[in-house]
Amino acid sequence: MKSLKIGMLGCGVVGLQIAKLLISNRSDLSSRAGADLELVKIAVRDLKIKREGVPSSLFTSDSKSVVTDPTIDLIIEVIGGIEPAKELILSAISNGKSVITANKALLAKHGAELYAAADKANVDLYYEAAVAGAIPILRPLRESLVGDHVLKVMGIVNGTTNYILTKMDENGAAFSDALNQAQQLGFAEADPSSDIEGVDAAAKAAILASLAFHSRVTDADVYREGIAKITATDVKVAKNMDMVIKLLAIAELTTDEKISVRVHPALITRDHPLASVRDSFNAVFVEAKSAGQMMFYGRGAGGEPTASAVLGDLVAVARNRVSGGLGPKESDYADLAIAQIGQTQTRYLIRLNVADKPGVLESVAHVFASHKVSIQTVRQTGSGDKAELIVMTHSSNESSLSATVKDLRNLSAVTDVASVIRVEGIN
Amino acid sequence: MKSLKIGMLGCGVVGLQIAKLLISNRSDLSSRAGADLELVKIAVRDLKIKREGVPSSLFTSDSKSVVTDPTIDLIIEVIGGIEPAKELILSAISNGKSVITANKALLAKHGAELYAAADKANVDLYYEAAVAGAIPILRPLRESLVGDHVLKVMGIVNGTTNYILTKMDENGAAFSDALNQAQQLGFAEADPSSDIEGVDAAAKAAILASLAFHSRVTDADVYREGIAKITATDVKVAKNMDMVIKLLAIAELTTDEKISVRVHPALITRDHPLASVRDSFNAVFVEAKSAGQMMFYGRGAGGEPTASAVLGDLVAVARNRVSGGLGPKESDYADLAIAQIGQTQTRYLIRLNVADKPGVLESVAHVFASHKVSIQTVRQTGSGDKAELIVMTHSSNESSLSATVKDLRNLSAVTDVASVIRVEGIN
Repeated sequence: MKSLKIGMLGCGVVGLQIAKLLISNRSDLSSRAGADLELVKIAVRDLKIKREGVPSSLFTSDSKSVVTDPTIDLIIEVIGGIEPAKELILSAISNGKSVITANKALLAKHGAELYAAADKANVDLYYEAAVAGAIPILRPLRESLVGDHVLKVMGIVNGTTNYILTKMDENGAAFSDALNQAQQLGFAEADPSSDIEGVDAAAKAAILASLAFHSRVTDADVYREGIAKITATDVKVAKNMDMVIKLLAIAELTTDEKISVRVHPALITRDHPLASVRDSFNAVFVEAKSAGQMMFYGRGAGGEPTASAVLGDLVAVARNRVSGGLGPKESDYADLAIAQIGQTQTRYLIRLNVADKPGVLESVAHVFASHKVSIQTVRQTGSGDKAELIVMTHSSNESSLSATVKDLRNLSAVTDVASVIRVEGIN
Repeated sequence: MKSLKIGMLGCGVVGLQIAKLLISNRSDLSSRAGADLELVKIAVRDLKIKREGVPSSLFTSDSKSVVTDPTIDLIIEVIGGIEPAKELILSAISNGKSVITANKALLAKHGAELYAAADKANVDLYYEAAVAGAIPILRPLRESLVGDHVLKVMGIVNGTTNYILTKMDENGAAFSDALNQAQQLGFAEADPSSDIEGVDAAAKAAILASLAFHSRVTDADVYREGIAKITATDVKVAKNMDMVIKLLAIAELTTDEKISVRVHPALITRDHPLASVRDSFNAVFVEAKSAGQMMFYGRGAGGEPTASAVLGDLVAVARNRVSGGLGPKESDYADLAIAQIGQTQTRYLIRLNVADKPGVLESVAHVFASHKVSIQTVRQTGSGDKAELIVMTHSSNESSLSATVKDLRNLSAVTDVASVIRVEGIN
């Protein structure tokens, strides 16, 4: 049996799980790979941290020595962030090592450069763990659905925000209270901005869009809105309409064959498959021309689920080494353009505080009509100075909708535009 | 660009879709594969049938000429059934051609022989379309989860029976009426026995079990019960208990590391992810040690979804030809034994018609206790001669449960054992 030596960069929550599983399941993993898989070196910043279950002889603080070690065949990168991860991965690749990484931020920013280097060096670059943790979604897009024409990918890919929105839905909590609760329970970081502002989801959206549409999409291409502005009232109104608010990462083909890629809160009906994805679970909904609608559901984060995805990639890459082949390269032949957010077709739910007097609805309706935005339903609640109009639009392009909202703000009959939230999953 | 020629065996509903898509999407598929993909021959039984959208020059009635044609690189088999499919596939393999098939019956019976032949000839054998149509589930098991320890796979993998059970649930219809409706709408065949008796699901269960547990599992290993005995009353009782009856294909690891593989109707709670899989949709629920619980959901059958899966495999196999590698071989190293159905741990819901008089519950409880089957809940409905006991057991082994049921039938206080249905998804 061939022998393959593995080096790892980083040993945090995910890395420690990978190391433990690689050691304890070595026999099974080796049988599946068709090659003995031996973890030989782990680069860490601080050698003094105690890491139970992994022999201390494996650790080194010299990360360069891991990626240049001529005896090492495969590198697992779980440092995260851009540098030094990028430099180390490029060095590993140029030294002929295949790389498995969970680094969404790096792939979303510099994926093309990494792919090109891997292609030049004839090595593999695998990264299933970068999106939706343990849920197989990148391999299905990269391989299973490669014979189909993907139309839309829509996912709940950030566990922290989904946990917060779930608590707001369940308990009627305010955003800040739900965030505090998530932080206390370890579902949100001390600095939660990357999650709640949608930065994490945007990196994942870029990766999903690249694979789904065979084009290069980077994090800079992703239109992004976070969930901090979502109020308890928004959630309550959604509930009354049998809907729920989710932070969605969306990549879809526009009618003129461009890629619309965006992250924002959106209302979906409670019978949509994504609506029942609660707490810190993740799910990705895919629509393809021949396959129809699919959903992939599971745990999106955490040491063990992420380790599962990394080890699956490790066995796959090892099998490629044994068979003498390579996994799929970057597929960017379609080279589709990115649609501006203004060109995106979407629906809005708009809540307006208005004075309850004759002519208000007429003047509001006039604003929508002047921008050719068609209204599906209007509901008025309250009366007197506390009246509220809830307007659901038909699908229209975003720039018309934005212009409509701007004019509504200037309308004397409208005291306040209380909220503007997109609606997804309804045609 | 390398050129790969494709031959196809069969051109029914699925084959016609594949042929049309291969021709109309040739440019896209070729770009993704890294090789020009050209459909050059299609073997059919009857040349006189008109097949719109596919040039008649491609058709031949000589299937042997397709699998022996030295210019052909890849073979797609969509004839179905055991022979002549098996002989043709083996001939194609021995002639150096990689094979993509959707033939679940053949794989469940003779998978090992096909794998061995492919291994010997250094060609690929791919079959994503064999289970759950367009839903990527075999590749996730074979590749994505190969670094994990799968504990259980539980799927709704037969659209016909799921359609029938959904209608029984929605309308309170009797089994025979729901079956008639399914036949009229084309969701069930004129001879529906393979579907309703669980034969189709059992072949899929065998394939899922083989991949999940790295062992050889054939259709003969699968314990099987169909849905013909499920009554409108069973469905109604389930509904009252906030449960739903589904035909499940289950492959799970027993506590003594054997494989329990079975197809039978089972009750699941309405909040289980599989409960909301309705009509002819399919879904597969997977539980793995590190990844936790996952679900894969989508269209399980039909020409287009199946074509999507076949074409995904085609591109993957073509990529392997281009890179000079091979996809995963059979992984049967674990060689786990098959558990007898009697050893399987399961729960039952048992409905008993009893006379409503003192001592009945005591004698019924005594029978359960004598077989060490622990009761979770008992509910009595009705009174007098029309009384009914609904007993939910704790998990116990099947042979104890069967012996319990046998003794209950002989109990004088019990008029009739009205139904016995397993319960899944509750620990």
